[in-house]
Amino acid sequence: MTPLVGILGGGQLGRMLALAGIPMGLRFRFLESRPDCPAAAAGEVIVGRYDDHAALTRFADGLSTATYEFENVPAATARWLTEHVSVYPPEGVLAIAQDRIAEKSLFRDLDVGTPAFCAVDSREQLLAACERLGLPCVLKTRRLGYDGKGQWVLRSRADADALPRVGAGLIVEQFVGFRRELSIIAARSRTGEEAFFPLIQNTHRGGILRESIAPAPEVAPELQSRAEIVARRVLERTGYVGVLAIELFEMPDGSLLANEMAPRVHNSGHWTQDGADLSQFELHLRAILGWPLGADSSGRIRTRGASAMLNILRGDPDPSRALSLAGSRLHLYGKAPPSAGELRKIGHLNITANDAGELERRLCAARTALADLL
Amino acid sequence: MTPLVGILGGGQLGRMLALAGIPMGLRFRFLESRPDCPAAAAGEVIVGRYDDHAALTRFADGLSTATYEFENVPAATARWLTEHVSVYPPEGVLAIAQDRIAEKSLFRDLDVGTPAFCAVDSREQLLAACERLGLPCVLKTRRLGYDGKGQWVLRSRADADALPRVGAGLIVEQFVGFRRELSIIAARSRTGEEAFFPLIQNTHRGGILRESIAPAPEVAPELQSRAEIVARRVLERTGYVGVLAIELFEMPDGSLLANEMAPRVHNSGHWTQDGADLSQFELHLRAILGWPLGADSSGRIRTRGASAMLNILRGDPDPSRALSLAGSRLHLYGKAPPSAGELRKIGHLNITANDAGELERRLCAARTALADLL
Repeated sequence: MTPLVGILGGGQLGRMLALAGIPMGLRFRFLESRPDCPAAAAGEVIVGRYDDHAALTRFADGLSTATYEFENVPAATARWLTEHVSVYPPEGVLAIAQDRIAEKSLFRDLDVGTPAFCAVDSREQLLAACERLGLPCVLKTRRLGYDGKGQWVLRSRADADALPRVGAGLIVEQFVGFRRELSIIAARSRTGEEAFFPLIQNTHRGGILRESIAPAPEVAPELQSRAEIVARRVLERTGYVGVLAIELFEMPDGSLLANEMAPRVHNSGHWTQDGADLSQFELHLRAILGWPLGADSSGRIRTRGASAMLNILRGDPDPSRALSLAGSRLHLYGKAPPSAGELRKIGHLNITANDAGELERRLCAARTALADLL
Repeated sequence: MTPLVGILGGGQLGRMLALAGIPMGLRFRFLESRPDCPAAAAGEVIVGRYDDHAALTRFADGLSTATYEFENVPAATARWLTEHVSVYPPEGVLAIAQDRIAEKSLFRDLDVGTPAFCAVDSREQLLAACERLGLPCVLKTRRLGYDGKGQWVLRSRADADALPRVGAGLIVEQFVGFRRELSIIAARSRTGEEAFFPLIQNTHRGGILRESIAPAPEVAPELQSRAEIVARRVLERTGYVGVLAIELFEMPDGSLLANEMAPRVHNSGHWTQDGADLSQFELHLRAILGWPLGADSSGRIRTRGASAMLNILRGDPDPSRALSLAGSRLHLYGKAPPSAGELRKIGHLNITANDAGELERRLCAARTALADLL
């Protein structure tokens, strides 16, 4: 009777999906290789790898619907699952989001601007691509990159020559001098209903998202509309169901370029837990279950004042420091702290305020008080 | 390493405490006789009754601290537990809250107004009490009453004569013609820090809470202060730790009378999940762990706009009806729906709005759309 939602992956995104879904009467099951994963606090864990058929069979048994918290699910797993239960977002989107060439080709086909790019499978092709796109440029693996891993900025011909191995499965992208990084989080329901959050302003350091501010400051309604058009084209072309995140560059001339997309809830949307009428996690679940998305008549989810999110990347011995900051909400993932010198997402702090000025003061206070954790 | 919090009882209050605590990095264990209880979605359930010593021993093993979601825990259980782990609120408060005479005597000792009352242990004493307090008056059991159960309004001598059995363990209270019912929710931490939510306006029908509105409309700062003084006296006299709720009557002359108290999170505080900087559930956990309470410099938890809570008391086949209401958040407890004609708390709907006018419109829409569930 109670809908049972299956999630491939048991990390923090699975944990936060379940914490958002339990109050709507849902139950959760995760397929995950580590039994003590973050999601274990909020549902049943089937311990197994994505290619373990016995585990997959137990996972699929009795599910109302399935989704994932992670886009690098093997295609064979997604296909098998799709034959046994409804899986959202659809399998075809996974294939696109797993491959930077397919992703950027989709943007191009949809007439969405994107940095110029070239597929590269050898050192000769790399040198030709550097020639064609100009230096600096960015070399990335086509697949499986995350948090800046699998990326190299090439500033000179010498940087390219110094690379030890250049083989198949790479992409070179034009290095674009953006004004800032933005993201848009959108959703499309099984019923076709769509909903959008306001644009988010993101700051990365070392390839890792450090801060998000939402609504992004100084966004004209026309910029928001252009971002929503980008998202809508992807949603509709792919027959998308669920939450979709698209990372964008705002260029000095005011144009938007699409950088990449994530077919799932996204780190830059965590502020919605405390700064919006409903969170991206609740929105994703409503979308995959065909429930109303809760947007206003213009398709937007209403936000509350101004919000920010700070990722916690280092050990946190005592939550009381974070809890004493005004307007702050702590979201820990139940992970062991990273070892010294390592940075790993073990939680985040959401900060809410009545307006942008108050937010800036609260952000400054948090950055100072928690400097050793960020 | 991760603090493990034990909760006596596994109902909806335990469930919501855990859902609020998991993001702060806490884990939960419940002692509850039904394995499929509402709290099972968010922690480990030790199946057993409160007087089952083997179960109690397993429950207490390794806890960081213990609390309860229900005040009618047997005194012997609370005492045994207190010898093994820190238990908050303290055992002495339980004894007071379990007995309407002790509770009203505490209010009287603290110079807090309360309806006049008399202990009654026989039919003779009942008739004398009716004489002394005047009719109508309210006869209640001293212990174990809830949701209007164990209460009888006596409007005439004939009503008293018609009662089939009158024995020991009763209380008669003056029937007071209040203007409205209010409640105050307050907290005191292990460190002595205190925090208060704004006064809440409550509507009961058939002895069951139906609606809460917060902040209560038309509350002068002076009324809020008087309510906080009442709560502060109880917190400090009893050495309280945790969240405390006090139900109050606002009288036609503007005075406040204390009706009863609950030494725990309270149904009239459920709106705080969506209408305040932090919820009563998070506040209770912060208080019992000695963490900062998150109040502003005047000791108040900041609220967001205007909020209301509607209890869902009848079967709810499809959550999408409730989810389509603007500004609404659904909180279901994972309980089987009540049988036809029965009313039982199976969930609640929180409604948030920018101001009181918008809240009233949204409340009207919700009351109409969900009339068959309320």
